[in-house]
Parts: sequence; C-alpha cells; structure tokens
Amino acid sequence: MAKEVVSRKENYSLWYNNLVTKADLAENSAVRGCMVIKPYGYAIWEKMQGTLDKMFKDTGHVNAYFPLFIPKSFFSREASHVDGFAKECAVVTHYRLKNDPDGNGVIVDQEAKLDEELVVRPTSETIIWNTYKSWIQSYRDLPILCNQWANVVRWEMRTRLFLRTAEFLWQEGHTAHATQQEAIDEAEKMIHVYADFVQNWMGVPVIIGKKSESERFAGAVDTYAIEALMQDGKALQAGTSHFLGQNFAKAFDVQFANKDGKLDYVWATSWGVSTRLMGALIMAHSDDNGLILPPKLAPIHVVIIPIYKGEEELNLLRSQSKILKKKMEERGIIVKIDDRDNVRSGFKFAEYELKGVPVRLAIGPRDYQNGTVEVARRDTLEKQTVLQEGIADYVSNLLEEIQVNIFKKALKFREENTHKVDTYEEFKKKIEEGGFILAHWDGTSETEVKVKEETKATIRCIPLDMPEEAGVCMVTGKPSKQRVIFARSY
Amino acid sequence: MAKEVVSRKENYSLWYNNLVTKADLAENSAVRGCMVIKPYGYAIWEKMQGTLDKMFKDTGHVNAYFPLFIPKSFFSREASHVDGFAKECAVVTHYRLKNDPDGNGVIVDQEAKLDEELVVRPTSETIIWNTYKSWIQSYRDLPILCNQWANVVRWEMRTRLFLRTAEFLWQEGHTAHATQQEAIDEAEKMIHVYADFVQNWMGVPVIIGKKSESERFAGAVDTYAIEALMQDGKALQAGTSHFLGQNFAKAFDVQFANKDGKLDYVWATSWGVSTRLMGALIMAHSDDNGLILPPKLAPIHVVIIPIYKGEEELNLLRSQSKILKKKMEERGIIVKIDDRDNVRSGFKFAEYELKGVPVRLAIGPRDYQNGTVEVARRDTLEKQTVLQEGIADYVSNLLEEIQVNIFKKALKFREENTHKVDTYEEFKKKIEEGGFILAHWDGTSETEVKVKEETKATIRCIPLDMPEEAGVCMVTGKPSKQRVIFARSY
Repeated sequence: MAKEVVSRKENYSLWYNNLVTKADLAENSAVRGCMVIKPYGYAIWEKMQGTLDKMFKDTGHVNAYFPLFIPKSFFSREASHVDGFAKECAVVTHYRLKNDPDGNGVIVDQEAKLDEELVVRPTSETIIWNTYKSWIQSYRDLPILCNQWANVVRWEMRTRLFLRTAEFLWQEGHTAHATQQEAIDEAEKMIHVYADFVQNWMGVPVIIGKKSESERFAGAVDTYAIEALMQDGKALQAGTSHFLGQNFAKAFDVQFANKDGKLDYVWATSWGVSTRLMGALIMAHSDDNGLILPPKLAPIHVVIIPIYKGEEELNLLRSQSKILKKKMEERGIIVKIDDRDNVRSGFKFAEYELKGVPVRLAIGPRDYQNGTVEVARRDTLEKQTVLQEGIADYVSNLLEEIQVNIFKKALKFREENTHKVDTYEEFKKKIEEGGFILAHWDGTSETEVKVKEETKATIRCIPLDMPEEAGVCMVTGKPSKQRVIFARSY
Repeated sequence: MAKEVVSRKENYSLWYNNLVTKADLAENSAVRGCMVIKPYGYAIWEKMQGTLDKMFKDTGHVNAYFPLFIPKSFFSREASHVDGFAKECAVVTHYRLKNDPDGNGVIVDQEAKLDEELVVRPTSETIIWNTYKSWIQSYRDLPILCNQWANVVRWEMRTRLFLRTAEFLWQEGHTAHATQQEAIDEAEKMIHVYADFVQNWMGVPVIIGKKSESERFAGAVDTYAIEALMQDGKALQAGTSHFLGQNFAKAFDVQFANKDGKLDYVWATSWGVSTRLMGALIMAHSDDNGLILPPKLAPIHVVIIPIYKGEEELNLLRSQSKILKKKMEERGIIVKIDDRDNVRSGFKFAEYELKGVPVRLAIGPRDYQNGTVEVARRDTLEKQTVLQEGIADYVSNLLEEIQVNIFKKALKFREENTHKVDTYEEFKKKIEEGGFILAHWDGTSETEVKVKEETKATIRCIPLDMPEEAGVCMVTGKPSKQRVIFARSY
C-alpha cells in the first residue's frame, strides 16, 4: 500500500483524506475550512474548467465577472433565498486595520466601520440580478447567457477537503429569458451538459433528476441535479441547475418590454458545479493504492521510468525514453520521464500509482535490447510487455480503453448497488448497506422528513428519464406515480 | 463621434470612462469600488489570461490556489509588508447573520464573532509562505514555481474602472529558490515575460527598470517594473516582479537543508499583473471614435455588415457573408455577421468602431455583383474595396499589419514624448507637458520626495538597459551614474 494510505474497508473517510493529501491534491490551510489546492490537484481542476468552459461556450454562453461582495440587504429581497444563504457566511464589517497603540501588531480600526455590512458571496443571484436590472429593457436584450468562474464562501461548520469547504471554486451560470419555457429549457440543457461532462470526461455515471421541494435551491421553482454513487454507497450531488421562475426578477424589479410592448418580469436560471467535483472524481474510481484518474482529466497520461544500474545504463535508457516520449507527445499524449537517482524504482511505481497516472512505462536494459517496454495500466494494475515500435498507437488506444473501462466499472458498481424496494421495512434494512434505493413516495415533505429522521436517507432526485410506474408510497401507502431515488449522501 | 464619447482633448478622464462603459467593457456595481466586468471586457481579459498562462507554463510554472482569507496576525510578521498592505483592506469579523427580531431583514449575529479577524487578501505572500513552510525541507524541494489566478481586495478610496478598483482580478506568482542568484534571475525573467506580453500582444511599448527604494513593493529587496506611457502623457505601471530576498522566509521560518546539509532560509520572488492591464490597453491605443484593439487580443477580429434594402437583398448578402465568414474562420479569424434589421448600417459602423473591432467588411448589392467587399481598418479608419477572392489571406495579412502598426504608433508617441532634461528648471516646465523625462538623480529619497511634492512627478523606474552616463542630479547637483525616468503617473 502506497505511502501509508489506509484501505477503504478499514476507514473510508480516512482513505479519502489520505488520497487527497498524500497524492498532493490539496491540504488544509491556516484558515479554518479553507483549503490550499496544490499544483497537482489544480492541474486536474484546470482540465475540468477548460472542458466545461468550452461546453458552455459551445452552448452560447459568455463569461463575465461580478463582485465578490454583496450588500447585506440584498439577501433580504428574495424571501426563501435569505434563509438558505444569508446565514453561515463571512461578513465584512470594517475596511481598515491600524497599528495597535500597545505595539502588538495590527488591530481593527473601529472608526472604519462600513455603513452596511458586506457578505462574501455564497452565490451570486442577488448581485447579478441587481446588475441585470440595468442591462434589460426589451426582449431584444434577451436572452442573457452569462457564466462566471469564481470563488465563493459558505461558513460550513464541518468541512472536508473538496467535498465541503468554507471557500471553494466554482462556476455559476446566470441566465435571463423572455419566456418561461425558454428558461426551463435552459435549466434542462445545462443539467444535461453537466451529465455529459461528468460521465464522459470524469467517467462517473450520474442520474439526472429533479429535487423534491425540500431539497430545492433557496429561491428556485425547480432544481435539477445529477447524482453519483460513491464507493461507500453514499450519493454525491455533482451539479445542479435551477429554474428560478420570476423570483429574482421580482425581487430586483427586472422587467422587460415584450414583443407586444407589454412589461413582464424576466425568467431566470442559475447552474453551477464546483471543486466538489474533485471529491466525486477521487471517490468514484480510486482504490487502496491511490488515485485512479480518467485519462481525459489526468495531468500526466504516461510516466516513463528507466530501470537502470549505473550512469551508463541510465544515459542509454534516458535517451531511449526521450525518443518514446517524443513519439507519444506527437499524438497529444502528456508524458513525464522520471529519472531521479535518489529513489528506488519501486518507490516511483508506488508514487505514480498513488497519483493515479493512467499508464506507466518501465524500460530496462533488456527492454532496450529487445526493443520492448513494460506497460502497466493503473485502472486494472495489469502489466504487459509491448514492442516500442508503434508505442504511440498502443498507448493512445490504451488511454481510450481506460477512459471507457473506468466508466463501465463505476456503472457496474452503481447497478449492483441500486435496488428497488417496496416496503419501508425492507428499505430500512437495505439503506444500511448503502447504494441507491428506488422506492415509491407519496410526494409530501412530511414523509420525506420522517424517512430522513429514521434512516438518515434523503430523496436524491426524482429521475427525469425513468418510466412512470403506478405504486404506493412505502411509508404511507398513498398513491405514487413514479419511483424516486433515496440514499444517504455527502 | 460614437454614442456620445467625449473627445480626449475635451476631457481625457471622461473619455476613458466613456469608452469603458459604452463599449461594454465594465461598469460600477452596487458595491463601492467593485466593478462588474461585462462579457465583452471579460473576453479580452480571458485572452490576456490564456496568453500569459501559456507563457508562465512555458517558463516552468504551475498553477495552484491559496485561501481568500489571511489571518490578521500574518501581516504583522513582515515588518514593512504590514505597513504596505494591512491598512486599507476588507476585514471579516463575523461568520453569521440572523433574522432581525424587529423583522427588518438580517443583521450580524454578534455571537458569531471570529476569534481572530480575517483579512480578504490584498496580496498573498504571507499565507503562501506560511504554506510553503511545510512544503520545503531540502534543496530537492526547490525551486517551487507557483502561480495563482485570483481576486484580491484593496480598499482604495478613489477608484476608477480597471485602473484602481477595490476588488480586482490578477495573477500572482510566488517562487521559492535555493540561492539568491536563482531568485534574482527568476524576478528578472518574469519582468521580461511581462514586457514580451505587453509589447507583442497588447501592442504597448514598455520600459523595463528597477523601482527606487520608496516605490518598492512592501517587503521586497528589489522591485522590477514595466512602465508604459498613456496618450495623456501619464505613465502607467503595467506589471511588477519582486526579488524578496529571504524576508518572507525569515518571517515565516521557512528553512531548507542545502546540498551540504546546512540549514538556510529560502529565497523568494513574487510577480503580478492585473485587470489594470485593461486600462493600459484602452488608453494606449484608442481614439475619439472608441476602442482600438490589437488583433491578438480582440474578441472579434472581423465584423461583416450586409448593406441591403429589403428581404431579398438581405438573403442574398447574408448567404454571401456566411461564405466569407467560413473562409476566414478556416484561417483562425474570428468573424461576426451583423445582419440586424432594426438598426441602420451607420449605427452598426459606429458601434463596432466604438468596440474596437480591428476590421470591418461591408458588402452591398453592387459588391455582390462585382465580387468585391469594402474593407475598413479600425486603426487608421482607411477603407478599400477588395476582391472577395482571396479575402482570408488579405484579412489575415491586414490583421498582422494592424498589430504591428498600433505598436509602432504607440512607440512613436512615446519617443516623441520622452525628453532628456538636465536642469530642474527645465524639468518643471517639461513635466507640465506630460511624457517621460530622463534626468539625473542623486539616488536619495529626499530628492525624490522633493520632486514629487513640487511637481507631482515620481521616478517611474531606473531603466535596466540604458547605458550608464555620468552626470549630476538635476536637483542637488550631486553625482549620478545614470538617468532615471520621471513622470506623472496613474
């Protein structure tokens, strides 16, 4: 086991933390709940950003940037939003420090108190809709399809690297539309963009659905979500897209003249994914040896490790490694040669397994003579001796295969851990084993609360693409039109 | 004159503000001093980011992310840093809001007071060096070459869009080295990277130099800067790179074992450019009709405007426009067709001049018949009728020519407005005309202060690549080895 990573079985939560810190993805900082994203972790996030950004632009969106601070009073404008977001947050009250007259560093200058406190944005609907007010007069100004990449702060009491941190990085799309249908279409389009990304880039299967009322975004009419299943049987919400109706337009008085010249309130959506995706990526695929990264998001695709004794062999193998590297790079493969002389090969092997590099090539003197190389794939840990001739093709295909394989593996896991359940009795038993449970529900918040209190499970979503099926609520016996997904969650 | 942009002569400062707001680059927000960067402005910033990010990576740097908040006490650790940065800043004192018992929205929960106040980062040396402490044990951990793209906050009293805002976007590089020379080399390398970017992408000529002691970054041993001259004769500092010596390593106790196994403090640099570059870009090139953007950073290279009467002509010209667009796009040219039917062509012409789109193609029915198109370049406002055949080549060359031309024009302006001056008398006269003044200075802060108080001019930099030249200080008559650059500045 690499660098003292605890096994999943032994302690799943510690295993996760070990991976994040020992694979150099992130660490806790001196500021409570705020993380430092280290270069290796940030490189993965950059790939996520780059891919998503392109997907947003391909669907007609543009980037913009709105202020970090939001006047406190803005939160009170939208009734349900204030309860959801204006509570645990970072509040700026002063704008100056001064030297402590007692000589102990700096203290807050009490004379520099803000007239109105500023909240560090937990999400930007309010400041953005306050801005849109002056951008929108007529239907010709619509739609507005803005996204921003930003940091946000929510003062979480219990934090975990990537999964729940006080400060996190995200993108938030905020769109404005002339009609209700257009806004609903946009919200649905974006949840499908997220699903596409999470499945086809991250290799994590998701279920697309609507949230029940109690799990909706504060201020939304409807919240769409994608839900993924982690290896410990808990669900993780990987992205959300909200149809906001006219709630924020009414709160900030954003009206437009429609084609008939009549004034109407503007329709809105918002949607976001965050560095939390890093948590999903890590937990969905990795094993007790370390990370398993999908090739499409791996900062390094291939590491080449020369196995040598003495300077002469090293020189020989180093130059051969460079030739292989160049061949692969011409195919767009990102290659690193590790020829450090102060650590053993076994140490290097473990290190790149820990870091989830998808393919490892080892080349020793015998390989050099035979024109071969040892190829090890990270996902299955299988090794094979392969001819150097045609290595770029071989590795290129292998990377595609790995990308497909880790998705399949995660999908198989989810299928094996998804169960239809018809009685509350059975539900209580099954939920202890983890996984998604498909059950009938009567549609009321009361039942949802009862299930949560008694089993810690919540309704993750009401799947969009599941056929309707008449049944009765497992708890109350009242009629139900469709099964919903229950699970314990992150 | 487009959309009521005031002329430079009439009111330079208002002209600048007009351009920023009327060309949809940015606007003030509801939060004092914080701007909204609008999609068109952000698209330029994204191109700047993309180019710089590649240049940083090509020089061996990696990205990471450090917390938004810095514990107040961190600032007191480095003596001069605290004076420079821990004063006008946003201070977070509480972490919760609650409902006002009187029913007036939300108020700060006084029970949720932080034990130690957090400062919203004005720059990140302190939190980063506190982090580096655990990353660095031996010379094998060095160098560390990190950069971060982030938002920072400095509570400026007088703000101007892009040039000086309370919140701004920037990148900050923070590197750690085993030797003094390596750190100095890094600081110099990065100021040259900035100069390369500003000159060859933004088209703005700069002078590279060192700052005098009083203009140095708070905590630096040496500050390198690039200085550009704006059209009103004022200098603008476009980027800085600091050699920090061992100051932050000592403040945060960051030591490493060198090759001889002896402990030593780590050597540091930091370097940054910000959305302030947008201000430089706008002011260096634009004219009374609006923005002039260098093609390398323009969000749109070419706008095609069909000039038509009636539906039939429109359809004809629209499909011909699409053919031209496609041809140009194949060459990597970004093209927009504006076939709106609710505004006149003249209005469109003015709009794209205002927005600084480098090339405009107008195509009317006669052009259609003749196989021609009218090409107008934004930088010189020259128009020419050109064959559609080979248009992609023509425009591609034209864009390159424009890129070169606007740099040349800005360079010529700078040369015409740079003067050698030998007496303080003459200096006082010349400084009223604006521009760079090359004068001898005795190297003391006293003289610098006197000049600043009497003329509002400061030493912009001590140029790196200017030959030494013996002389006497224009103010005190004391000996001087080199001329330095004085100017009034932003």
